[in-house]
Amino acid sequence: MTTLRKQYVVDRPVYSEDSFDESHEKIYRKHKTILDHVKKYLTCDAKRAKNAVLSRLPVIGWMRMYRVREWLLGDVVSGISTGMVAIMQGLAFSLLASLPPSYGLYTAFFPVLTYFFLGTSRHISVGSFPVLSLMVGAVVTRLVPENGSPANITDFEGLTQDQQRVLVASSVTFLMGIFQLAMGILQVGFIVVYLSDTLVSGFTTAAAVHILVSQLKFVLGLPVPGISGPLSIIYTLEKIFVQITSTNICDLVMSVVIMVVVYIVKELNDKYKAKLPVPIPIEVIVTIIACGVSYGFDFENRYNVDIVGKMVSGYESPIPPSVAIFQESAAEAFPIAIVGFAVAFSVAKVYSIKHDYNIDGNQELVAFGVSNMFGASFRSFAASTALSRTAVQESSGGKTQIAGLISAMMAMIVTVALGFLLEPLPRSVLGALVIINLKGMLMQFREIPYLWRRDKPECVVWVGTCLAAILLGLDFGLAVGLGVELFTVVFRTQFPCCSVLANIPGTDLYRNRKDYLQISEPKGVKIFRIPSPIFFANIEFFRDKLVEAVGFNPMRVLRKRNKALRKIKKLLERRDHGITENGLQDLFRPNDDHQVNLKELDLPFQINWNAELPFNISVPRVDIHSLILDFSAVSFLDISALKGLRTALKEFIRVNVEVYIVSCDAYILEKLHGCMFFDDEILTSMFFPTLHDAMLHVLENHQNSGAGWVCTCDIS
Amino acid sequence: MTTLRKQYVVDRPVYSEDSFDESHEKIYRKHKTILDHVKKYLTCDAKRAKNAVLSRLPVIGWMRMYRVREWLLGDVVSGISTGMVAIMQGLAFSLLASLPPSYGLYTAFFPVLTYFFLGTSRHISVGSFPVLSLMVGAVVTRLVPENGSPANITDFEGLTQDQQRVLVASSVTFLMGIFQLAMGILQVGFIVVYLSDTLVSGFTTAAAVHILVSQLKFVLGLPVPGISGPLSIIYTLEKIFVQITSTNICDLVMSVVIMVVVYIVKELNDKYKAKLPVPIPIEVIVTIIACGVSYGFDFENRYNVDIVGKMVSGYESPIPPSVAIFQESAAEAFPIAIVGFAVAFSVAKVYSIKHDYNIDGNQELVAFGVSNMFGASFRSFAASTALSRTAVQESSGGKTQIAGLISAMMAMIVTVALGFLLEPLPRSVLGALVIINLKGMLMQFREIPYLWRRDKPECVVWVGTCLAAILLGLDFGLAVGLGVELFTVVFRTQFPCCSVLANIPGTDLYRNRKDYLQISEPKGVKIFRIPSPIFFANIEFFRDKLVEAVGFNPMRVLRKRNKALRKIKKLLERRDHGITENGLQDLFRPNDDHQVNLKELDLPFQINWNAELPFNISVPRVDIHSLILDFSAVSFLDISALKGLRTALKEFIRVNVEVYIVSCDAYILEKLHGCMFFDDEILTSMFFPTLHDAMLHVLENHQNSGAGWVCTCDIS
Repeated sequence: MTTLRKQYVVDRPVYSEDSFDESHEKIYRKHKTILDHVKKYLTCDAKRAKNAVLSRLPVIGWMRMYRVREWLLGDVVSGISTGMVAIMQGLAFSLLASLPPSYGLYTAFFPVLTYFFLGTSRHISVGSFPVLSLMVGAVVTRLVPENGSPANITDFEGLTQDQQRVLVASSVTFLMGIFQLAMGILQVGFIVVYLSDTLVSGFTTAAAVHILVSQLKFVLGLPVPGISGPLSIIYTLEKIFVQITSTNICDLVMSVVIMVVVYIVKELNDKYKAKLPVPIPIEVIVTIIACGVSYGFDFENRYNVDIVGKMVSGYESPIPPSVAIFQESAAEAFPIAIVGFAVAFSVAKVYSIKHDYNIDGNQELVAFGVSNMFGASFRSFAASTALSRTAVQESSGGKTQIAGLISAMMAMIVTVALGFLLEPLPRSVLGALVIINLKGMLMQFREIPYLWRRDKPECVVWVGTCLAAILLGLDFGLAVGLGVELFTVVFRTQFPCCSVLANIPGTDLYRNRKDYLQISEPKGVKIFRIPSPIFFANIEFFRDKLVEAVGFNPMRVLRKRNKALRKIKKLLERRDHGITENGLQDLFRPNDDHQVNLKELDLPFQINWNAELPFNISVPRVDIHSLILDFSAVSFLDISALKGLRTALKEFIRVNVEVYIVSCDAYILEKLHGCMFFDDEILTSMFFPTLHDAMLHVLENHQNSGAGWVCTCDIS
Repeated sequence: MTTLRKQYVVDRPVYSEDSFDESHEKIYRKHKTILDHVKKYLTCDAKRAKNAVLSRLPVIGWMRMYRVREWLLGDVVSGISTGMVAIMQGLAFSLLASLPPSYGLYTAFFPVLTYFFLGTSRHISVGSFPVLSLMVGAVVTRLVPENGSPANITDFEGLTQDQQRVLVASSVTFLMGIFQLAMGILQVGFIVVYLSDTLVSGFTTAAAVHILVSQLKFVLGLPVPGISGPLSIIYTLEKIFVQITSTNICDLVMSVVIMVVVYIVKELNDKYKAKLPVPIPIEVIVTIIACGVSYGFDFENRYNVDIVGKMVSGYESPIPPSVAIFQESAAEAFPIAIVGFAVAFSVAKVYSIKHDYNIDGNQELVAFGVSNMFGASFRSFAASTALSRTAVQESSGGKTQIAGLISAMMAMIVTVALGFLLEPLPRSVLGALVIINLKGMLMQFREIPYLWRRDKPECVVWVGTCLAAILLGLDFGLAVGLGVELFTVVFRTQFPCCSVLANIPGTDLYRNRKDYLQISEPKGVKIFRIPSPIFFANIEFFRDKLVEAVGFNPMRVLRKRNKALRKIKKLLERRDHGITENGLQDLFRPNDDHQVNLKELDLPFQINWNAELPFNISVPRVDIHSLILDFSAVSFLDISALKGLRTALKEFIRVNVEVYIVSCDAYILEKLHGCMFFDDEILTSMFFPTLHDAMLHVLENHQNSGAGWVCTCDIS
């Protein structure tokens, strides 16, 4: 408090916007037109060209500054650890995509190769991401269902079910790559800003629920066909519960044991993070053990356990994507492209900030677009990044994408040479590992009460996105969530709290009349604060609130006055200009302030509407002579608002209320000029820079009209 | 200018929000919770109950004050004129709905009966509306195409094509009624505010184009099957042009003649509006003439002209709607319900304002809902109002819905007794009359250049809605238009013009630094104005702009400083506390203002970061000591913005920049308190009521730091 002893002393002329402009010279600044922007964008010189090439091939940039001695060891160690995780996740997530596990290893290999050259992030681990895999899986099971005939696509002829599924997955991935590349070229990477944290949280939670449900069949060892489309989750659960009695006990026990073990070890890893040189790779350990046990006890035949089975050794030949599948899956590939990019970009951003380098959203789009198209040609499916894998890559010392390259090599080695070792691995083990890793995503449910307490619209976005994504599927859910989210922005500005302001005595400050004990409102003046932008959806709301605040409807008053005028005129004609008769004397005073402006009814005098009218003529009283609108929070106006505002102002002006607008943004004033807002009734002289300026002006004008308020502003 | 000679004199203490709150007692106001609102809503007493009944049956209200002598004659005359128009439009618009013309007369009769009791508008003429008829027609032709088999719906069994079509139309109408009734009961009538003028203009223009194309086949006398779905307009035009050589010349000539005649007479009606007692009913006249001529010359057989044909005499029995059709058409019935209500409500509003009575959006929804359900049971199709017909009803003297009732009687008389007279009427005449009435709607294309010059986003909404509605169909188009419109609101607040403010010398006013010649920016202080609400989509944008404005990235500075600190610490350890050595003396000054707050690196002294650092340590310079954020236009903050803002503020605070927030809305401050925004770094003392208060506080604090700016505020 001690620092606030200083006085606030101002002594200057009262300014209106007009007089302010007169006494302070303004600089004329030419605004750039769209053409200027396009011209600037298309200008080309040597430097720009060089930069363009460098920004297209970020590998050149970071390779030139690669510090072999300092970084290489870290990259190698990190690459090997990440590689192990990538192999595990590749196998597991390929089950989400309803594909044979070996294709998950493809996804851990091909996309990394191109991302190495094109990507701007040095730390993310490119490869499969569970939510994406599931979204691809939804298309796969829709077009090639487990039981029943596949969709009527000519490219399917002569292929086995697995081959058809791989064709679908790779075509969807190729299309997703096209979308990403196109967005990158069109420079629309900024669209990820619309995926707010809240939306992403609700969406990923829903994805976790979907993943959980999709893995139940492996954990329980039940044959459940993949179902897609709205409400598929309900049908899947129904199918599971109908046959719950045929659960494979061996699968279930093994899964539960693995989940418990992995959970405990992960908690220990977390707890002793500081003490452990490297976290215990419990997932790799249990996988190896499970492989060994399954092989040793011949789980497949003895307990009828579903195992990974024959791994394709080596790489298959590339395949062209199917245009027929493009047509079938375009509506699903687009959200996949968006989600894939959004996840990768947000993860990349975290590490780019941590390690102080720039990433470029549009270049990332290009990189992922090309990587997905390249990968899809070699039968891999949708690639993005997984937060957990990237965390391993960064924390184990990875400095650049060299680590990514090494992890890809690990995946290659398994594909080419060691695949057969994984063949006896029970699928329920993979399912259990997927489920245990959902913990973080499912914990996001705890955000609901948090958001509800702090910000209800945001809670609605979360719950809306999550419910829609769970019930309608992830792609629809994302669209619904986006819609709800954009709508909340509109909604927030639509019903704001309008307030009537009044002066804090002894200051130039104005606050909400209802909030302070000592506050004074000059008689005959209303100060109305508009606390948000004005646009089509709230202009009527503001007009209603304004009428409420001033206590009369100017339109109605005007109509009543006109009616009264007609009546008076008739009376006058009948009485043959009986101006000297009893009641009429006070009624008609020439040159009174309160006059009505009516061209059709040219009366030879003016009427004081606030006097008692004779002949039982009643007209609503207008208690105010001035209305001040505080525009300081009006950040934009659209055409509808402009028209509505104009009408509202004119209504007030016509019932002889002076209207002032204060603290209006310079850009809005400019726009008003551009849109022919002003005419002979609405004048630029009604604009004032501050509320207090307008108030002083009003008080000066109405000094003699008996305002019950003394200007106490220069009392310190 | 003469009135602005007054001085603006203020002398008061400098306030921060904290000190202001201390010296001005605030009233504690309890905010209503959602529960309170619900309680209030559910409270019931005798008065409320009576009002509820009255508001549910508005007919009681206006019937009680019906002035028989003054109003009845007007109502009867108006009812007869409106009835003629309603019959004409009923016949013509039933072609839009792909139904036999007699059902148009049903639509002019049944819905009026219930609206009479339930509607709050006294002037609208309830009945068919071309856009709605077309939207119903799209469903009809989709489910029961002209050629080819109808959709697989069991209720169709044993019905002729026309009967199937009537069943579809009445079922869609019934469903539309259900939607409207439900919206009315749920009190969501306010949703029409989202249909802004611009959107409606674009949408109705597109509808006019659709109507034009749909009537071409009648005017040209060509057999064109009704096509629905996206791009149907292209396919329809293609079908027409393919067979353009088989045009029926008789139809074409008759249509062109009628169009020219009607156009000219309508222009004359407009021109001599004041002189004519009643506009010439040219449409009725040409219809009668066309009927006579067609009958006399036997157009049907001689020229193969398509005529109205057998009219059902009298009314058919009611039919139940088909639930199977509900399922098929739900997605289309919803936009029909919205459009129908929106049109009727906006027309009703115009006349309610003109005649000074209240209409109730929710009651209107109920009224139209019930009317459509009632009408649909008797085989009529979607009812709303047509602007042209309502204009006739009001201008010819209609005062209440008695006029509507009489027009319905006229339609009944034609249906029951005079229908056979209309049988020889060529359909091309009806088509020509529909087309000529599109003039007003098509003229709306002129809005494009107007909007482009004034407000580009709104132009995008118009063009987007119009194109989408033309190409994708009216229902999809409406959805797309709404999406675009909501998006523009977000977009407008997303990339606003941020500005750096500076003081206008001699005043307490602050303006954009670039706009004025004489403007002074105190050294070491940046004033950054945030000109819009802050939310998920623009928080990053603001952070970027802020970094640009201050000229350094605080995050980067902090990281560099930490690095430098570690280096210095290492050096110090090596030199064994060599504090007296050459460069280090100026470097370390205890209790300096510029200190870094780093717990891990507890140095026994503080560093002046703006001094020259020894050992080639370079840290980016921070030129400012204070940052003032002008929040006057921030009308809301969401959680993402809150988090982002918090991070941004902390970054600045940690590099020893004092941050102040000024003119923050009271509600936002309350919200910040509620969301735990404050901690030991972000204090409530950083909030100031005005920019000038904060500036005076800053200048006081940094008096000795050689700020190159003199406080000139009390020079008048």
